[in-house]
Amino acid sequence: MDRARLAVDYARRHRARFVDELCELIGFPSVSSDLRRKSDVERCAAWLADHLRRIGLADARVWRTSGHPLVWARRQGAAGAPTILIYGHYDVQPEGSREAWQTPPFRGTLRGDHLYGRGASDDKGQLFTHIKALESYLATSELPVNVVVLLDGEEEIGSPGLIKRMQQGSDALAADLIVISDTRIPSPERPALTYALRGNLQLELGVSGPARDVHAGYFGGSAPNPLQHLSGLVARLHAPDGRVAIDGFYRRVRAITPEERAYLVAVGPPDSAIVKTQGSPPARGDPGYSLYERTTARPGLTVTRVSTDGAGGPAAIPSRASARIDIRLVPDQQPTEIAELFRRWITGARDEGLRASVRLVAATPWVELPRRGAVPAAAAAAYQNAFGVQPVFLRSGGSIGVVSAFQRLLGIPIVLMGFGLPSDGAHGPNEKFHLPTFIRGLETSIWFMRNIGAIGGQQPR
Amino acid sequence: MDRARLAVDYARRHRARFVDELCELIGFPSVSSDLRRKSDVERCAAWLADHLRRIGLADARVWRTSGHPLVWARRQGAAGAPTILIYGHYDVQPEGSREAWQTPPFRGTLRGDHLYGRGASDDKGQLFTHIKALESYLATSELPVNVVVLLDGEEEIGSPGLIKRMQQGSDALAADLIVISDTRIPSPERPALTYALRGNLQLELGVSGPARDVHAGYFGGSAPNPLQHLSGLVARLHAPDGRVAIDGFYRRVRAITPEERAYLVAVGPPDSAIVKTQGSPPARGDPGYSLYERTTARPGLTVTRVSTDGAGGPAAIPSRASARIDIRLVPDQQPTEIAELFRRWITGARDEGLRASVRLVAATPWVELPRRGAVPAAAAAAYQNAFGVQPVFLRSGGSIGVVSAFQRLLGIPIVLMGFGLPSDGAHGPNEKFHLPTFIRGLETSIWFMRNIGAIGGQQPR
Repeated sequence: MDRARLAVDYARRHRARFVDELCELIGFPSVSSDLRRKSDVERCAAWLADHLRRIGLADARVWRTSGHPLVWARRQGAAGAPTILIYGHYDVQPEGSREAWQTPPFRGTLRGDHLYGRGASDDKGQLFTHIKALESYLATSELPVNVVVLLDGEEEIGSPGLIKRMQQGSDALAADLIVISDTRIPSPERPALTYALRGNLQLELGVSGPARDVHAGYFGGSAPNPLQHLSGLVARLHAPDGRVAIDGFYRRVRAITPEERAYLVAVGPPDSAIVKTQGSPPARGDPGYSLYERTTARPGLTVTRVSTDGAGGPAAIPSRASARIDIRLVPDQQPTEIAELFRRWITGARDEGLRASVRLVAATPWVELPRRGAVPAAAAAAYQNAFGVQPVFLRSGGSIGVVSAFQRLLGIPIVLMGFGLPSDGAHGPNEKFHLPTFIRGLETSIWFMRNIGAIGGQQPR
Repeated sequence: MDRARLAVDYARRHRARFVDELCELIGFPSVSSDLRRKSDVERCAAWLADHLRRIGLADARVWRTSGHPLVWARRQGAAGAPTILIYGHYDVQPEGSREAWQTPPFRGTLRGDHLYGRGASDDKGQLFTHIKALESYLATSELPVNVVVLLDGEEEIGSPGLIKRMQQGSDALAADLIVISDTRIPSPERPALTYALRGNLQLELGVSGPARDVHAGYFGGSAPNPLQHLSGLVARLHAPDGRVAIDGFYRRVRAITPEERAYLVAVGPPDSAIVKTQGSPPARGDPGYSLYERTTARPGLTVTRVSTDGAGGPAAIPSRASARIDIRLVPDQQPTEIAELFRRWITGARDEGLRASVRLVAATPWVELPRRGAVPAAAAAAYQNAFGVQPVFLRSGGSIGVVSAFQRLLGIPIVLMGFGLPSDGAHGPNEKFHLPTFIRGLETSIWFMRNIGAIGGQQPR
């Protein structure tokens, strides 16, 4: 009997325990952006290293960084087989307002076909598919490939520790390809490989006026208002047709080929599906493109927050106001160039007595991966094995900072093999993971290792 | 010797102790908007009632309300003399960020000619001028008038308890005129009576979109953004020339007569003084008017805060955004009518998938007081007695809610006899009171009682 088939049978028998273990993993409030939870992040890392040792990755260990730790393990499989670097992240987003949750965010809770809890989908549940695939092989035979497991405790804050280690060079990360499950598929019946991510530029646009807050009674009518000026700048960021109004913003945007457009129309979600998921009619924007194209193949700009300094209260003209701007980038836009265009555009919009400034908070380049080659083929075949249908290739509107870092620093093929669903609510309250998709995901991982192993010693491309 | 002269001599001899006592009064953090400080407000009221009894107002007492207490006292003076209702407020604004303070906000601290501390000017220091004037008379002879003392613990939150009591009718408040020291004079050498206050309308403008925050990566480009729409509405609240753009906003604005304009030009602060005090060059606004006119005789609109609900973080399109709008009203604008015009204007500016709404938070009518008559003349003469120069009559850009309530519910003359300076920094950090002006203020109060007493039994108008 095929070793992969043995592993799949084992996984199906132990499904209930796997879910219990995932609940345990969700129980750690490993919020990387919250310093008060540093010890929770560390306990989560220790649990994962221990878990990897118990399933047979004997040298699993916790790697210290200057921030939160990485969990690392390596295991030799079939002689001469390629090495897969399995990347996932065990840190999670803050849970936000507890009142918005129907179950405790840090207690995995089963309801029907779904497991609820922060990180259930992003990314504890998705990384767990690979851990349980490894266990299923090791409990029944041996691995068809060599693996390096790398679990990040800082993905949600930009992976600084991992990027630093890669920049220093590390033999411990040597591999032939990388698989990451931190993306989405359109539905449980419609698996997908993600071949493009948008980049992300986070800017802070600030406007300063009077040296201190002044009273709107005494100075309303004479003192310039930074918040009023900022609102005007924000309002002008988009043209009436919905396009971004910054000069040169679209200059380097690469046109999608007619072939790719036709393919995206055929496989991507229709406007109606996106309208349903977002829960509101579409905004004006980018005439001539579908909503799916607008959110994946076209750039976007969103003001996500406006705030004022000081405690002047509701009757004060604030001395300073700032806006957080979230820009999503597509090929061939360059983050630093767009930041510079933004800065120039703001400089052209001065007002008497007010100074505008732009601060670059974070920049993540876009990513495009090849859809052809032995590695994407092995991944597509694995989905076919587990889901019974061929996956589609999709662009994602999201950004995963570490992916472009892998591309730049390791230079090996990357597979974005997602199992999240649009309805999972990652980053929001009541995040959940669809358990039948969890099981199919773990089977996809089993078949993927088999398919990569079958390529043999030749360089998998 | 004139009794007033005896009182002035007493006041000059006891000046140092008066300042010590004012420091004690500033020591109570009587922040009426902060429920955690309810007991501090009550301790402050008890201290004041005790203090009034000790200086000779034997029946001083604390009046309970459903909120913070009032302090009340009455004392008969010369037979047949008019009764002055002395109103002040012992509650204060929150101190805001402690880091912005150079001295502890709730410890009165002497530095040169100034006494620093929250409430030093607004209004503990100003109300204390009258208390010490009463003491100075009672320690040396008797009062030339009858007085009712009324000290409010809720002025900064709209005086709900006092207004309710006035609506029910109260013999204990029967008086012939009211004096309030809670306004400003241009400089220590330039005393002033305030004869007009702007009204105030506080509105919340909200825009709602998707039912929950959605991710700017996945939905940036397709989901409507309430914060973007709100910014557009706020930006359009003013026309490019700086005028308020709401249809009908200026319809009922009464033109200032050429005589009044000429007077205001002669006595009001020049643009350069206002620019210096506000610490920044002037904003665009209301063409053809001086900054002093723009901030006192013309209406104004200021957005003071923009906020978003939820904890979606910097990568979320917020499901709702709101702005606080501070509108200052002049004769003959009506708060409810302006709120309705605002609402209509917003309704005309809908966007697909977004709902705008307007909530009235608070409304205070404008006030205009006569400049001629026995009472203003007595007040002007008192300033002349104490400062050695005739006071000017000024409009103020601020709003004092309780003044229009007194007008409406008691219907007796009101004198706004201020001793604050533009540089006192009321409501801000490092609030201070100019001690030489405090002493002249207390002498002004002494002379005012003398001058009103001299009018005698005839109805003072």
